[in-house]
Amino acid sequence: MSAPVIVPVALGARAYDIRIGSGLLQQLGRDVAAAGARTAAVVTDENVARLHLDTVRASLDDAHLINSAAVIPSGEGSKSFKHLEEVCSRLLDAKIERGDVVIAFGGGVVGDLAGFAASILRRGVRVIQVPTSLLAQVDSSVGGKTGINTKAGKNLIGAFHQPSLVLADTDVLDTLPDREFRAGYAEVVKYGLIDDAGFFGWLEKHWGNVFQGGADRTKAIATSCASKASIVGRDEFETGDRALLNLGHTFGHALEAAVGYDGARLVHGEGVAIGMALAFQFSVRLGLAAPEDAQRVVDHLKAAGLPTRIQDIPGEVGDADRLLDLMAQDKKVKAGRLTFILARGIGRSFVAPDVPPQNAREFLKAALDGSITG
Amino acid sequence: MSAPVIVPVALGARAYDIRIGSGLLQQLGRDVAAAGARTAAVVTDENVARLHLDTVRASLDDAHLINSAAVIPSGEGSKSFKHLEEVCSRLLDAKIERGDVVIAFGGGVVGDLAGFAASILRRGVRVIQVPTSLLAQVDSSVGGKTGINTKAGKNLIGAFHQPSLVLADTDVLDTLPDREFRAGYAEVVKYGLIDDAGFFGWLEKHWGNVFQGGADRTKAIATSCASKASIVGRDEFETGDRALLNLGHTFGHALEAAVGYDGARLVHGEGVAIGMALAFQFSVRLGLAAPEDAQRVVDHLKAAGLPTRIQDIPGEVGDADRLLDLMAQDKKVKAGRLTFILARGIGRSFVAPDVPPQNAREFLKAALDGSITG
Ligand SMILES: NC(=O)c1ccc[n+]([C@@H]2O[C@H](COP(=O)([O-])OP(=O)(O)OC[C@H]3O[C@@H](n4cnc5c(N)ncnc54)[C@H](O)[C@@H]3O)[C@@H](O)[C@H]2O)c1
Ligand SMILES: NC(=O)c1ccc[n+]([C@@H]2O[C@H](COP(=O)([O-])OP(=O)(O)OC[C@H]3O[C@@H](n4cnc5c(N)ncnc54)[C@H](O)[C@@H]3O)[C@@H](O)[C@H]2O)c1
Ligand SMILES: [Zn+2]
Ligand SMILES: [Zn+2]
Repeated sequence: MSAPVIVPVALGARAYDIRIGSGLLQQLGRDVAAAGARTAAVVTDENVARLHLDTVRASLDDAHLINSAAVIPSGEGSKSFKHLEEVCSRLLDAKIERGDVVIAFGGGVVGDLAGFAASILRRGVRVIQVPTSLLAQVDSSVGGKTGINTKAGKNLIGAFHQPSLVLADTDVLDTLPDREFRAGYAEVVKYGLIDDAGFFGWLEKHWGNVFQGGADRTKAIATSCASKASIVGRDEFETGDRALLNLGHTFGHALEAAVGYDGARLVHGEGVAIGMALAFQFSVRLGLAAPEDAQRVVDHLKAAGLPTRIQDIPGEVGDADRLLDLMAQDKKVKAGRLTFILARGIGRSFVAPDVPPQNAREFLKAALDGSITG
Repeated sequence: MSAPVIVPVALGARAYDIRIGSGLLQQLGRDVAAAGARTAAVVTDENVARLHLDTVRASLDDAHLINSAAVIPSGEGSKSFKHLEEVCSRLLDAKIERGDVVIAFGGGVVGDLAGFAASILRRGVRVIQVPTSLLAQVDSSVGGKTGINTKAGKNLIGAFHQPSLVLADTDVLDTLPDREFRAGYAEVVKYGLIDDAGFFGWLEKHWGNVFQGGADRTKAIATSCASKASIVGRDEFETGDRALLNLGHTFGHALEAAVGYDGARLVHGEGVAIGMALAFQFSVRLGLAAPEDAQRVVDHLKAAGLPTRIQDIPGEVGDADRLLDLMAQDKKVKAGRLTFILARGIGRSFVAPDVPPQNAREFLKAALDGSITG
């Protein structure tokens, strides 16, 4: 076991470290004790509990910490008021006080729900994020966005609540289903596309190693975290640049909504993969980017086994107008104008806050007709 | 109508004004428009809606603001996850976005619930507090504490979310039931007892005018707000001095819990009145304060029609051990030690973080035996 890579997140009084490496679960108790907590409450989901909860609790026991676990059902459905209330009441039963910690141990669903619960428990207790999916390790565990879904949409209720530490154990990804790993990989690619053409080039060569594990996986996760940390450091509360992280997400969210968030048809990262391909193709159509760049994006995502076309989604998703409506309901819409993240090339993305809906409609029609290939 | 009194709350980037005066409801729309909002959602309770909602909505209409109202049942029971979810979903239906405002229009229940909902809606939208009970005008609308209750206790789930403006219209108190006015008055007295003996002396002379309305009422509210603003300015997140605001509340909360939060038997401010009398008598017993000071506190509260003895509560409240247990469940308990706010005299209160439970038990026994008079 080599020493973990440490990525600092510079947020003044709310600064914290992300540690990435092998064997971190086994040391968790030591880290929690070092944070000065006496009591720790683990929040996790059924899948992660079955595979890894014993390891975590043994580590907490070894460090003589009073500990308990709340296990929620796996899946997006747990990001609800109902489960928020349940988790809060479990944390209160566990007598978590201001100096103690909540451990969010799971994928992005657990991270968002447990992080939110920690932020409102006694008006705020510390949370340590221990992400177990690739998506959570490179994205959702970093940056402090937490929240739940409502009938009106995803993540509309929540809080900014930075973790006090993020521990990304790369070994834990070995039990992650292939499809989930690939979906998380879409977010890794995203960081290259936003502002790091060199990283994208590296991924084109080394993605196979990233999937296999070892040093290249750690490197890909650390580079992703550093990229997110830097963007979040510039814009903690998403008033500007942080929106770049939504590359591929305006289209992606609409597609997720179009399939009714049915994970059997489309998981989030797959929506993002298609969304990033579309964002680049839309940029080409608007005369912003070169067709070769869009093609490289599509080729790489395909190579990694990710979908890149709306037609890759099984079943019906509806026409251009339906997708446009779904985009307009997204919270990235300000006063009726559509915000897209577009690109002038690989690693040259930017926030386009005022895209005419008409342009988006025509592009979507073409994409659905199959007249945009790639 | 004279110009309102303005009390600034100095909290850096989160600074705001409290305006206190007559006729402020009629100008609300102008203030909301001046804040740059296009849409405003009023949250209020049934009693306040019946008496004052038309005035508020007319004012919003006059200012050409898109507006809507969510009316919750009156009473502490509305500070629940169920009503939080309902209010959030009403605010989403009303299309409240980041630049818009939530208007918390009611007593402390509405203020705490609507303020909390605003803090988690889209990870935080602005709230304007328009308090309508005396308690809310002098206490709950200022300082940014928001929250709801759970089975485990009161206010255990919530957020710090400062309002962007507080408008305390003194006229609106004319419809407040007498008993509620008196209960709110207990919190006014509290500010004198904490650190302003001069204000307490002024209240002893002028409390009748405060109850009647007019300039002395405005003065009492403004002095109370200034006192709270100063304490909150020193300790926004309650890591120290802010605990002074809990004078009378350790005992008071235990009494409220002892009657099962039955407002027919004891409302919050009445619990605080008894609690302040007990805190001074306990201080006398511990050799900290002079008996004459405790007597002045009791005399003034009685004069204003407030209860001062546990025996003043109709029905059974249980014995000393039961009350002590209820105190130990309060969140002001750190690692088994009881925190009380005690006093060396009127206007000389201090945080006593480590009171032996045995001393508190003996004192409570004496108080219940009637061997402490006043
Ligand atoms: N807060 C943020 O900034 C942010 C950013 C991006 C996404 N998100 C949120 O993240 C969520 C998606 O996260 P996700 O993709 O991790 O979903 P997820 O949490 O549902 O995890 C995906 C699946 O993998 C399983 N799993 C996780 N770790 C495992 C492991 N090590 N071994 C075996 N199975 C494992 C889970 O049980 C689940 O079935 C969405 O709700 C999204 O809104 C949040
Ligand atoms: N956030 C804080 O810092 C803080 C501080 C103190 C108390 N609180 C909370 O405040 C709540 C108590 O507040 P409250 O005493 O205002 O209770 P409340 O909101 O229940 O109001 C008391 C009663 O008066 C009615 N009412 C209010 N204004 C009226 C008016 N102008 N005319 C007629 N009726 C009116 C209400 O409908 C209710 O029946 C508690 O939940 C307590 O926890 C919060
Ligand atoms: Zn994403
Ligand atoms: Zn009070």
